[in-house]
Amino acid sequence: MEKIVSLCKRRGFVFPGSEIYGGLANSWDYGPLGVELKNNIKNLWWDRFVHRRDDMVGLDAAVIMSPKVWAASGHLGAGFADPLVECKNCHERYRADQIDLKAACPNCGKKNTFTEPRAFNILMKTWLGAVEAEKAEAYLRGETAQGMFVDFKSVVDTTRKTLPFGIAQVGKAFRNEITPGNFIFRTREFEQMEIEYFIAPPASDGDWQGWFEYWRKEMRGWMENDLGLDMSHVHELEVAPEDRAHYSKRTIDFEFDFPFGRKELYGLAYRTDFDLRNHFKDTPPYKDPTTGEASWPHVIEPTWGVDRSILAVLTNAYTEEGDKDGGDKDARVFLKLPPRLAPYKAAIFPLLANKPDLVSRAREIYETLRKKFVVAWDDRGNIGKRYYAQDEIGTPFCITVDFDSLEKGDVTVRDRDTAKQERVKIDALEEYLAAKVV
Amino acid sequence: MEKIVSLCKRRGFVFPGSEIYGGLANSWDYGPLGVELKNNIKNLWWDRFVHRRDDMVGLDAAVIMSPKVWAASGHLGAGFADPLVECKNCHERYRADQIDLKAACPNCGKKNTFTEPRAFNILMKTWLGAVEAEKAEAYLRGETAQGMFVDFKSVVDTTRKTLPFGIAQVGKAFRNEITPGNFIFRTREFEQMEIEYFIAPPASDGDWQGWFEYWRKEMRGWMENDLGLDMSHVHELEVAPEDRAHYSKRTIDFEFDFPFGRKELYGLAYRTDFDLRNHFKDTPPYKDPTTGEASWPHVIEPTWGVDRSILAVLTNAYTEEGDKDGGDKDARVFLKLPPRLAPYKAAIFPLLANKPDLVSRAREIYETLRKKFVVAWDDRGNIGKRYYAQDEIGTPFCITVDFDSLEKGDVTVRDRDTAKQERVKIDALEEYLAAKVV
Repeated sequence: MEKIVSLCKRRGFVFPGSEIYGGLANSWDYGPLGVELKNNIKNLWWDRFVHRRDDMVGLDAAVIMSPKVWAASGHLGAGFADPLVECKNCHERYRADQIDLKAACPNCGKKNTFTEPRAFNILMKTWLGAVEAEKAEAYLRGETAQGMFVDFKSVVDTTRKTLPFGIAQVGKAFRNEITPGNFIFRTREFEQMEIEYFIAPPASDGDWQGWFEYWRKEMRGWMENDLGLDMSHVHELEVAPEDRAHYSKRTIDFEFDFPFGRKELYGLAYRTDFDLRNHFKDTPPYKDPTTGEASWPHVIEPTWGVDRSILAVLTNAYTEEGDKDGGDKDARVFLKLPPRLAPYKAAIFPLLANKPDLVSRAREIYETLRKKFVVAWDDRGNIGKRYYAQDEIGTPFCITVDFDSLEKGDVTVRDRDTAKQERVKIDALEEYLAAKVV
Repeated sequence: MEKIVSLCKRRGFVFPGSEIYGGLANSWDYGPLGVELKNNIKNLWWDRFVHRRDDMVGLDAAVIMSPKVWAASGHLGAGFADPLVECKNCHERYRADQIDLKAACPNCGKKNTFTEPRAFNILMKTWLGAVEAEKAEAYLRGETAQGMFVDFKSVVDTTRKTLPFGIAQVGKAFRNEITPGNFIFRTREFEQMEIEYFIAPPASDGDWQGWFEYWRKEMRGWMENDLGLDMSHVHELEVAPEDRAHYSKRTIDFEFDFPFGRKELYGLAYRTDFDLRNHFKDTPPYKDPTTGEASWPHVIEPTWGVDRSILAVLTNAYTEEGDKDGGDKDARVFLKLPPRLAPYKAAIFPLLANKPDLVSRAREIYETLRKKFVVAWDDRGNIGKRYYAQDEIGTPFCITVDFDSLEKGDVTVRDRDTAKQERVKIDALEEYLAAKVV
């Protein structure tokens, strides 16, 4: 883990937040490479789950919503008034008056892990209005989900979607976590990619089990095919009824083998009609335009953490390779990122930085390729150092322009994972990359 | 203006925030089409100013930063303690004890526009930490800019960029505006696209006037070529010294003729070395790797509001066209959006929804095109109604599959702006669109 954190800081993936002021605990900034990786993940997700589907529309609701939203959703309940304890190991919380504080944690079985009983408040409070005396209390959203529920009718009215269909959203959420930590794994400010997928209620033959299973497979498909995760490190945990959130009738956690242990990566929950029913108490229910039946749809909710996705991808990609002869001549560290996620798809080098012919030919190639791909330019140090630098940030291909290039019109393309090199015609480079980086 | 707000709500561009709870004043959610338009603008900006430039890197810093950041940046100064008044017309603020409250506003010249003197606090406060008794005060960022300043050294260390270079960021910012309003124009939660462009200080021959002029042109280029704004509606306002923000030595406001008047769209400021000097008080200054000179770079800051960009684009695109004969037969409303900004690049229709041959051929075309473009499917009502519906949301091309299509392999493509139709071979559709929607 230290190696990943160090690489992230050294190469500009993730910086400690407000570092020059001694940092703000568990706050992280995405640097120049981190923001590219993050955007690649978010764009890929949006493309897969919104653009390529007929049954999905996007939404971008405000972070600050009416406090009534959080009252109806149950987020302003228990935790506010009742003193709770939290297990420092598994982060499960219990009412202090309902648990034996000297016993093992009922969830993870560890002993002596409880915090002192405290009044917990998971939502971050703020005040709206510029005038001190007239400010109104409000909360930063604790999950993006409520935006999809509150805007449900507006979305139905404007898109005329019929069941089943989903609303997708990507955005920041904020929680006053009691025990944040583990780098970008658990932070108070984080980003979610969420879908609320609306289906017919069981009373109208809605098959929630079937849709739950469908989304379980979709989530696995995303992890395996889009993020390229080694699926032997992904585990499904059926969450026990007593451990589920107040709105859920079934929950599966997708856990991943992070460097600090097996921890929750994503979640899939069956939220029933809990949220819509609570938000639309005084409104006639949704009327299915085909069947005419009126009732609140039920909801399957697949949730992806953006920051945890990044951490899983980095964990999965981090590779150390020893020298062939056991020494450290060829030893290297590289990020085996799927090319579609890599910040740069290729790096272009002139073999020597002080030969104008090489530089200008390399520059031409760079300018041509950058119209289609995000590419890097490097003319510092020797080729070996440049390979090392690009390996560390996961650039899948390094393209070197040498003296032969000027005569024969081809370049050396070096593959990140195999370190093998091949000659490719300059005219064919665009097609070569296009075929490999999708 | 009412027409734009109404279209936005009716067609799913922008919904009032938390509407089912009576709304949260001046809060807005981007609906299914709004989020596509917004993403198109943000992606275009990132592509132009980050990916296509060698002198720019991206950043995605946390919304919640150390309170020390805001103390150093001057955002926790005056306004906190001193009672201020604000002109309700131009939003300029004055110390209540330094102005004649019955006189005209020195900025806009209007009379009787001042609010009551009040203690203003522009930053939104929150608390970090789950335990009531141990919470630490913090603020939501009032501008994305400070992230770029605070991370300046980390970015330089990891990217080894040399002057001049810039850091770009897109993200939410929050301000307790005294007089929010005008739809998405002035809201307490908003999104910015900002660049801090670092140049050599004047003492080292840094040409801030030259770079200021450079960025003025870049901003005009963005408005004209990327957003497609009618530049006769864009005006530059040289902000007077006494009206500039505390950090600025020169500011230009780019104003746009919104339906509610000429108001600020974007800003361009010369922030000098104010921020870096204040944040890095105890740190040795930046050392130019080429010249070896040590000093803090000066900063040119072009700032774009995302929400105001959307409002300007919608204002610019909204078009009402009368009937050719003066009646209302052909009267229509359409959004003349640049194709690259339109939520859908094309809509595909089967001429009749109840003819399986037409539907399946149209469906094939839809499935092919959606691999490359974001496209819509519509088989409801008659063709006229579908044209009307696509016009209203700015879809540049409507593609209709009719009986001739099945025999001759071509379709009708109807242009949004001219309402003219032409026959295009199905095989040539992809190329046809690719050439027109970039």
